[in-house]
Amino acid sequence: MPAQVRACLTGKLAIMRERRPLVHHLTNYVTVNDCANMVLATGASPVMAHAPEEVAELASIAGALVLNIGTLTLPWIESMIVAGKAANAAGAPVILDPVGAGATRLRTESCLRILESVKVAVVRANAAEAAVLAGLDGEVKGVDAVSGDARAAAQALARRFGVVAAVTGVVDYVSDGQRTVKIENGDAWMARLTGTGCMASSVTGCFCAVEKAPLAAAAAALAFYGAAGEIAAGRSPLEEAGPTWPEPRGPMSFKTAFFDAVYRLDGERAARMARASEFLK
Amino acid sequence: MPAQVRACLTGKLAIMRERRPLVHHLTNYVTVNDCANMVLATGASPVMAHAPEEVAELASIAGALVLNIGTLTLPWIESMIVAGKAANAAGAPVILDPVGAGATRLRTESCLRILESVKVAVVRANAAEAAVLAGLDGEVKGVDAVSGDARAAAQALARRFGVVAAVTGVVDYVSDGQRTVKIENGDAWMARLTGTGCMASSVTGCFCAVEKAPLAAAAAALAFYGAAGEIAAGRSPLEEAGPTWPEPRGPMSFKTAFFDAVYRLDGERAARMARASEFLK
Amino acid sequence: MPAQVRACLTGKLAIMRERRPLVHHLTNYVTVNDCANMVLATGASPVMAHAPEEVAELASIAGALVLNIGTLTLPWIESMIVAGKAANAAGAPVILDPVGAGATRLRTESCLRILESVKVAVVRANAAEAAVLAGLDGEVKGVDAVSGDARAAAQALARRFGVVAAVTGVVDYVSDGQRTVKIENGDAWMARLTGTGCMASSVTGCFCAVEKAPLAAAAAALAFYGAAGEIAAGRSPLEEAGPTWPEPRGPMSFKTAFFDAVYRLDGERAARMARASEFLK
Repeated sequence: MPAQVRACLTGKLAIMRERRPLVHHLTNYVTVNDCANMVLATGASPVMAHAPEEVAELASIAGALVLNIGTLTLPWIESMIVAGKAANAAGAPVILDPVGAGATRLRTESCLRILESVKVAVVRANAAEAAVLAGLDGEVKGVDAVSGDARAAAQALARRFGVVAAVTGVVDYVSDGQRTVKIENGDAWMARLTGTGCMASSVTGCFCAVEKAPLAAAAAALAFYGAAGEIAAGRSPLEEAGPTWPEPRGPMSFKTAFFDAVYRLDGERAARMARASEFLK
Repeated sequence: MPAQVRACLTGKLAIMRERRPLVHHLTNYVTVNDCANMVLATGASPVMAHAPEEVAELASIAGALVLNIGTLTLPWIESMIVAGKAANAAGAPVILDPVGAGATRLRTESCLRILESVKVAVVRANAAEAAVLAGLDGEVKGVDAVSGDARAAAQALARRFGVVAAVTGVVDYVSDGQRTVKIENGDAWMARLTGTGCMASSVTGCFCAVEKAPLAAAAAALAFYGAAGEIAAGRSPLEEAGPTWPEPRGPMSFKTAFFDAVYRLDGERAARMARASEFLK
Repeated sequence: MPAQVRACLTGKLAIMRERRPLVHHLTNYVTVNDCANMVLATGASPVMAHAPEEVAELASIAGALVLNIGTLTLPWIESMIVAGKAANAAGAPVILDPVGAGATRLRTESCLRILESVKVAVVRANAAEAAVLAGLDGEVKGVDAVSGDARAAAQALARRFGVVAAVTGVVDYVSDGQRTVKIENGDAWMARLTGTGCMASSVTGCFCAVEKAPLAAAAAALAFYGAAGEIAAGRSPLEEAGPTWPEPRGPMSFKTAFFDAVYRLDGERAARMARASEFLK
């Protein structure tokens, strides 16, 4: 595992849980409650606000800003850009979740507008969304990806916009266009819930609020998040030599266990569970 | 049980779970997360989007469109009509949930506008809402029904607008104005949660996406949904000769079990549990 | 314990659960589902609606109106004022939750506008929000309080606007400016979930719908709510001599248990668990 990712897990997570930085969200109303509870469980403080009159004030005091276009409208995109510029001015990292990019023209164009107007630190997307934004071919079925080479999409997206691209799927790829980290944590139960992509973006925001290097922050976030998923699925124990949790009865049992696991997972255990490997290009 | 309802449960549910059709929602922000997770658990793919610039694009690629007025505003009604017309043009069935029709003038009038502008396949309502829209007397207390003859309301509503009316309550009635199916599945725990009506509409959308006959689709959806409620309540085993689930400790334990039961209930078992009977007029 | 608080718990809760009064909310989209389910579990009927065309109609038939500015915009504030005036005209008590007052100018000014335009019965806030609205010093970090003398803030806020101020934290203080009730129920798990403040406001709305005296209603609501939290945390049995519930595994297990406990907790047991004491000034 890259040393920076390990250091982020073993050092920065504890700092986050002590400082509890604000993570400001402009996000969709479908999964917003889950994102807020996920931020709390990870160890930061969520604030959700979108009014144009206040977003700059909040973004400028936040540790990170998460822009998620899941239920976008044009006025929300305007607010996102105002918030993003304020975060940029204040030095707070901006995370973009381009939910459904490629599914409609409005989504694709709104993402491109945000990427051109705001300095985005991390784009957290699925392979299809990343491929569309990178200008590669890609099929997008609603808001769920059905195809695409995740690694190539991450690298192309990172290079095109000078961002860190965190592309999640069965295997996650986090790339700054030069270096790419492959992460093999997570569990199939995560795909059976709505909002696991949105929450991955929120957790990335939490880690970016305490780790300046977005590549390490995003990779650590996804390894941590995936490791918690494995614990919740009953595949790995929460403690090194402890018992595994019971197998979920269904997706909502898994959801309960997942939030509980995120809350209880510490950085040392996450670092030991992380399956992250770095390779050039 | 009507043969078409049985065939829908034993055949179409499996097809849904393989194809995972998009079910596009314009719905309220109170229960939208539950609706999304319920669609996933049933076996389809939820997409929630309301921006006027994109609803037609999404509705035209969806397997079904669900319009739920729970937290309506005038701009949302406009978007619903745009989406509904696009779904009509693409041949995708439209499901309307007239939440709180009769409670305010805005709600009643908005439903009537939708019913006049869009070809609706199924109206999924409670007895009071159905009675108001059918032009019968009915008392409506907020968004929960307190009175009304469900069967008469279903039949009258179906005839007035040429729709299938799926009226849910202790006993459900699904009518096309000629044929009426009575469904006696479900459990009292379902009334102790917000959103069980909304989710019934979403599940109806899932079945309509794979079954062309809306009467059979709606009846199968409600039998399936109610059967899952019985399993979650600890009254029926998930498997023919299996153990029953533990009795819920309260409404939130029931909610967890309910989503898990929907996810795990297959069509064969649902068909055996269904208490659906058809009678003329 | 003040006799009026005890009488509210032992008498009015049962009346609420029989009558199930409407509690109309204009609230944020982050915790709205939790608020609706919490109102149902407590024993009333939630209705969430914000369209300017219908809020007055609903507020005028409601037992109480809850205004929560968590995700405010200017149009929502307008709707809140329309609804508030209609509730005032109909004699329904209005509860204000000034989420994040002090965090942005928009929030502070919107609360002051509401307090000047609408006769508010109870302001349910944290110490920092209350201090800001009372004109005292106070630091506000996002939407979570970090400082402030809760008792002084409650008293000052109550006097400034002629309201009952219900200020929640590790210890709650409910004051009408003359009399102040101290409530020492609750559990640390409640702070690890988003929306426990919002839900406290909703439960206050439920009690205000059946108890005319807002000081007693708010104090009873917070004692009831905190007692349910203790049961859910596994610290007190639900029944006098019964077993305690299992300790939560994490915040989402706690959440499930919390709603279940609210649903199952009756007024007699709540009155015996309540740690409420009154003192002058």
